[in-house]
Amino acid sequence: MQIAILLYDRLTALDAVGPYEVFSRIPEAQVVFTGERTGPVRTDIGSLGLVVDAPLEEVTRPDIVVVPGGPGQTALMADGPVHEWLRAVDATSTWTTSVCTGSLILGAAGLLKGKRATSHWLALEQLPALGATPVSERVVFDGKYVTAAGVSSGIDMALTLANRLGGDFLSQAVQLGIEYDPQPPHDAGSPAKAPAEVVEFLRSRSRFVLEGAE
Amino acid sequence: MQIAILLYDRLTALDAVGPYEVFSRIPEAQVVFTGERTGPVRTDIGSLGLVVDAPLEEVTRPDIVVVPGGPGQTALMADGPVHEWLRAVDATSTWTTSVCTGSLILGAAGLLKGKRATSHWLALEQLPALGATPVSERVVFDGKYVTAAGVSSGIDMALTLANRLGGDFLSQAVQLGIEYDPQPPHDAGSPAKAPAEVVEFLRSRSRFVLEGAE
Repeated sequence: MQIAILLYDRLTALDAVGPYEVFSRIPEAQVVFTGERTGPVRTDIGSLGLVVDAPLEEVTRPDIVVVPGGPGQTALMADGPVHEWLRAVDATSTWTTSVCTGSLILGAAGLLKGKRATSHWLALEQLPALGATPVSERVVFDGKYVTAAGVSSGIDMALTLANRLGGDFLSQAVQLGIEYDPQPPHDAGSPAKAPAEVVEFLRSRSRFVLEGAE
Repeated sequence: MQIAILLYDRLTALDAVGPYEVFSRIPEAQVVFTGERTGPVRTDIGSLGLVVDAPLEEVTRPDIVVVPGGPGQTALMADGPVHEWLRAVDATSTWTTSVCTGSLILGAAGLLKGKRATSHWLALEQLPALGATPVSERVVFDGKYVTAAGVSSGIDMALTLANRLGGDFLSQAVQLGIEYDPQPPHDAGSPAKAPAEVVEFLRSRSRFVLEGAE
């Protein structure tokens, strides 16, 4: 089973590494990081380089495709090599997935038309223009399309998919292996749970949060 | 405020990227990835390259030091450049932290003598030989030493530290920004919560889980 994770400049690191950390622990799974050019891409704030090992043209039949989000998503909304690759691999993938604003890229490539999908909570409103029905849930399945909410939700998406692929024991073993027993200091991880002033603060800086724009 | 994250061959990616994703969102924070040699290191199973941007000798006074874990930890238990660097930066750091088996490296460098500390649940028993008192908690503070449990716990460690550094609003804003509202398919992320057969399975494969040894 091959899992292809798309990398591109100014992606959000955890969007890609969360699912990687889960999928790489599935026996028989081979994870490959792919992108337009081999070599390092830099993350959203530029302080981490992640390496593309295989160019898109060499990754032709992944079983699972993962599209992370991040500020660089805005540069991938126009048709081009990434959209062409996504449509080509989607034709034979078992699961086509995204994390955060990665769903906007999938949508722009025409793959979410008529589908229920999610995204970073600040980006949900952008989905209808791409033909998708926004759903405010952490992990959304519509047929073989699996979209996850913001950034850290890719961990839950991958565990949920591991559960479908290999059952309870597999996903529990992976979860215990990565000791995913979350205990954040606050219960503020969704707009419904965070204090209103925190939600408003991020809303007022929405373009910065999503696109890195000042 | 400078935050230095140590990279080395065969580290576990999420150990480093979890804290990175939190710390990089703190205003005024500068995250630097450091290691013995600049250029890519490969993660535990080899399928992801993360880039070291600054050699250890250029990172002399970080405010926060983060030592991730992973199979490559076993190669860093003997005295050498990494231990020397850790002792040097620890002399002036505000916080010296670890994720997963990164605490074993801190301990081997002599920094956890007489301290309460944690590690991956399968590695806790290795702490006493390094002079530390093992604590089975997700994030353990002892003075300026902050150790986190396995892999994903680095996210909680960093959010907890963000809370100490900048208060509730800051840590809530970062948490909502990365939409950290965990909803794994099972509540199996600690040995106390996972089914006994899953715990036993991982215990029986402890060396593989921690060290990648077959």
